[in-house]
Amino acid sequence: MTDITMIRAAASRLAGHARRTPLLSSPFLDEIAGRRVFVKPECLQHTGSFKYRGARSAVSALDAATRARGVIAFSSGNHAQGVALAARQFGVPSVIIMPSDAPRMKIDNTRALGAEVVLYERATEDRDAIGAALSAERGLTLIKPYDEPQVIAGQGTIGLEIAEDAAAMGITRADVLVCCGGGGLTSGIALALEADAPGLRARPCEPEGFDDAARSLASGQIERNARTSGSLCDAIVTPQPGNLTFPIMRRLCGPGLVVTEDEALHAMALAFSRLKLVAEPGGAVALAAALFRADQIAGDAVFLTISGGNVDADVFQDALARFA
Amino acid sequence: MTDITMIRAAASRLAGHARRTPLLSSPFLDEIAGRRVFVKPECLQHTGSFKYRGARSAVSALDAATRARGVIAFSSGNHAQGVALAARQFGVPSVIIMPSDAPRMKIDNTRALGAEVVLYERATEDRDAIGAALSAERGLTLIKPYDEPQVIAGQGTIGLEIAEDAAAMGITRADVLVCCGGGGLTSGIALALEADAPGLRARPCEPEGFDDAARSLASGQIERNARTSGSLCDAIVTPQPGNLTFPIMRRLCGPGLVVTEDEALHAMALAFSRLKLVAEPGGAVALAAALFRADQIAGDAVFLTISGGNVDADVFQDALARFA
Repeated sequence: MTDITMIRAAASRLAGHARRTPLLSSPFLDEIAGRRVFVKPECLQHTGSFKYRGARSAVSALDAATRARGVIAFSSGNHAQGVALAARQFGVPSVIIMPSDAPRMKIDNTRALGAEVVLYERATEDRDAIGAALSAERGLTLIKPYDEPQVIAGQGTIGLEIAEDAAAMGITRADVLVCCGGGGLTSGIALALEADAPGLRARPCEPEGFDDAARSLASGQIERNARTSGSLCDAIVTPQPGNLTFPIMRRLCGPGLVVTEDEALHAMALAFSRLKLVAEPGGAVALAAALFRADQIAGDAVFLTISGGNVDADVFQDALARFA
Repeated sequence: MTDITMIRAAASRLAGHARRTPLLSSPFLDEIAGRRVFVKPECLQHTGSFKYRGARSAVSALDAATRARGVIAFSSGNHAQGVALAARQFGVPSVIIMPSDAPRMKIDNTRALGAEVVLYERATEDRDAIGAALSAERGLTLIKPYDEPQVIAGQGTIGLEIAEDAAAMGITRADVLVCCGGGGLTSGIALALEADAPGLRARPCEPEGFDDAARSLASGQIERNARTSGSLCDAIVTPQPGNLTFPIMRRLCGPGLVVTEDEALHAMALAFSRLKLVAEPGGAVALAAALFRADQIAGDAVFLTISGGNVDADVFQDALARFA
């Protein structure tokens, strides 16, 4: 199970590979939020999202012989690109199983990063069976997107960096708002903060209608979403919190925060005008929570992640047209 | 006159205030350019452009009694915001003289940063007379946008950072492409590279029709632009290279690079999709040169600045609609 020792070991393996993202801020955002807002822009990470950290952590943790046979992942988005790049950097093959209706751009990017993309029909084919057959045939290792200890450890390195930067600024108590899908990022950050900044508390942020983590934290047990598609925040929509991530979140995280899709788009427009950053809708929910749920946050400072920036131009243009 | 000692002193004064921007990259940009591309994103600097560095350098270099009386600047854009923020941080008044037809957003931002904005009519009023009267009356110190040694020193801190990062990567020979208006950024970077990375060479980049630096370097004397308005790249359009900056550029810089306005917009779209950064048109000319003038560049690596990201949403949407 992931612990702080694993997170520190992941940080060592990521050093010189993952970007050490800065903390950004804007007096204009501080004014909206009513407190100082510190933004961790993982959209600037390699492949445009934090997922590269967990993928590189997991691929680098494999023993050399296992790794040499290659890795496999199921993903239509950010995890796919993270695994593809990490595998290419080690010179090992990667296979990504993607739905045939995934955005062309994401398929092309994943291929361009060196992965073999295997498409399946959502309606008629069983992706797990396809993946199992390929893994057995080639000896590939499955890299899960969040319910995998070394992936959680890799995402936790973001928490180490936030803790270090907060200490340098003398901030010892604050909420850390995290864009939350399956909970790999949230639980990893929570573990890192527990060790290095115990007065900082991770809180998952989700879009309305897909608030499984918030409801699970409230009830104390894993709750499912009624649906898992139809959200602009697709990058962070999962059926339910992970079996490994939820116990960590239950032990360490503060209450979840939930924002509307329009608030996420509005936050994207503010990230554009005030931070000069490109956020994807799911990557903007924590910024939206900091700005538009200020009454649910305590203290004179708040930290948050922008978890990714892989957004199609038409969605981004729409966010600007409506909210910039 | 600005020298490396002044640049290092400016770096000390800026430490803990200016952001130490990272170097970003993308394999997709490398492929277009045919070499490794390293991007210095000064759009992430405070106030959204590199101008904060020079402004803070100049304001912090004043003796305390002079500074306390306040500062004044002429600017319709990025320099205004840099001076306003630097003055506010020192708790001293700032007056910014802006044309009444400046974008409302820039006027509002400059006021929000604490400056007193004095508007004048371009057609009927003499901004220099207005500024001179205010300066005399209140004892304000004029902070020029580029032809000012301490401003050049502040911009030069970007060159120190590029030199340090290049050395860490083992890169000793490369062109450094710089978005160029009056030449403060280009000449400051050139001086820093001369001292700390003599195999790296600064080269000014400009939009077609406003290529006064390129033509001046070619002829060996200061050349003027035929016009100084009507460019989307307004942030980096000036009548001619500065009297202080040009001799530095002539001594140290490689030939200028010139791109079209459409190429700058195309580069903005690629900064969006590949770097998750918001660049303004003038701030994207060096990226455009790296991508679309590759035949005029030597070596297997190139560095470049994205000098600012203060772009109106409608211009950005247009760039995405046409080139993303």
